[in-house]
Amino acid sequence: MISIVGIGSGNRVEELTIKAYNTLKNSDIGIYPGNFIGEELKELFEDKTMFTGRDITSEKIKNIFHNNRDKNICLMVSGDPALYSGQFNTNLCLDEHIKWFNEHNYNYEMIPGLSSLSILCAKKSIDLTPFSKTQNVFITSIERLRDLKCFNYTELKSILSTKPVLALYQSLKEFDNIKSLLMEFYPPTTKVIFAQSLSWSNECIFETDLKTLNETESTTSQFNDQTLILVYPSTILTIK
Amino acid sequence: MISIVGIGSGNRVEELTIKAYNTLKNSDIGIYPGNFIGEELKELFEDKTMFTGRDITSEKIKNIFHNNRDKNICLMVSGDPALYSGQFNTNLCLDEHIKWFNEHNYNYEMIPGLSSLSILCAKKSIDLTPFSKTQNVFITSIERLRDLKCFNYTELKSILSTKPVLALYQSLKEFDNIKSLLMEFYPPTTKVIFAQSLSWSNECIFETDLKTLNETESTTSQFNDQTLILVYPSTILTIK
Repeated sequence: MISIVGIGSGNRVEELTIKAYNTLKNSDIGIYPGNFIGEELKELFEDKTMFTGRDITSEKIKNIFHNNRDKNICLMVSGDPALYSGQFNTNLCLDEHIKWFNEHNYNYEMIPGLSSLSILCAKKSIDLTPFSKTQNVFITSIERLRDLKCFNYTELKSILSTKPVLALYQSLKEFDNIKSLLMEFYPPTTKVIFAQSLSWSNECIFETDLKTLNETESTTSQFNDQTLILVYPSTILTIK
Repeated sequence: MISIVGIGSGNRVEELTIKAYNTLKNSDIGIYPGNFIGEELKELFEDKTMFTGRDITSEKIKNIFHNNRDKNICLMVSGDPALYSGQFNTNLCLDEHIKWFNEHNYNYEMIPGLSSLSILCAKKSIDLTPFSKTQNVFITSIERLRDLKCFNYTELKSILSTKPVLALYQSLKEFDNIKSLLMEFYPPTTKVIFAQSLSWSNECIFETDLKTLNETESTTSQFNDQTLILVYPSTILTIK
């Protein structure tokens, strides 16, 4: 059996669900392609086989599955597997893995995990949909849209014109390009939060507002590609 | 200390994070205003005080906090506390609780949980953002927008015109009213999933497509207000 398990930040066992924890404990082999897996989680695999690091390519992962059909294998995914898994042209996303499992008649299950958006909201006590604000939440990744050649400025404009709460995954490189759109539609007091390495020792959560951002040339240099950006309108609804 | 804890479906301990589980176990008092809390979770409070049911009003909750300042109190919230907590004019949302805690100098923390969207995706092996599709996910609640007198048909239209993956919380009563908008913008093969009572014994996940829905007079009568509706475009991107 293959389990695709969401592991939240990847650095804290306490962020795993009990089901995810038990699945990791009961697996024979653990796979995490990349470096965002910490010691606490690695310890769960002390007496098992674990494959991790940037050199664990999708081809290698397929070989591990192929050579261990009788084993319980756990493929770990940062955050929740349903949102922005994989890396274009580098690591398969969840959907590509599932297609491959179906083609090759593998048994698999998917175990949900905390998204970085949920983790960030909890750390900052943020209610994405309070009764005093819009109930609209828009989540996207500008870099992935670019990678897939389907970024559409006009489309983004018509969405942002409705001023939803905005969660941007993997969008940092493009942030300066959409800043003017944000300024056009959101009030200058709109809160903008950059969150990087949540729940890791180098966690950085930087809160600012659109007005300040607009007066700064570029704020993005101190952050990396994995930064989550939350744009949170401060407008209070006037209930009629 | 007050902990606001996301409990996922509210019926399965295995859906709790380890931190949420430990917080429930270590609390003196548990509060869940409503009925969507199952036996497995109630058992965690066997030797403690628990307040649950529809008669646990926000006023009663404030009194419990007030009369137990020295205790560890756990306020449980379905799904993830950041998304669609509370019920308009009936139960306070997260943000209202937090404002009240701040006003009265209470210590509190927020512990994230699995949203019903994450739980549904895992059950149906759905990747919300595969490389073959748009990376845009739009989450809203039409009924809450109506309650707050800020539902705007034109705004919704401009968002749906971009064909995002659409997750509708608390929107069932309004679904028939927006069906024509969906038909206008999404391909007829677009998958529509109605999910009710996820992880409860009466769990119901009904999959259909827009074309079938459009040929049916009303499909919503078998579902309740808490139904999550996922609109998942089947269009495959042609990567240029």
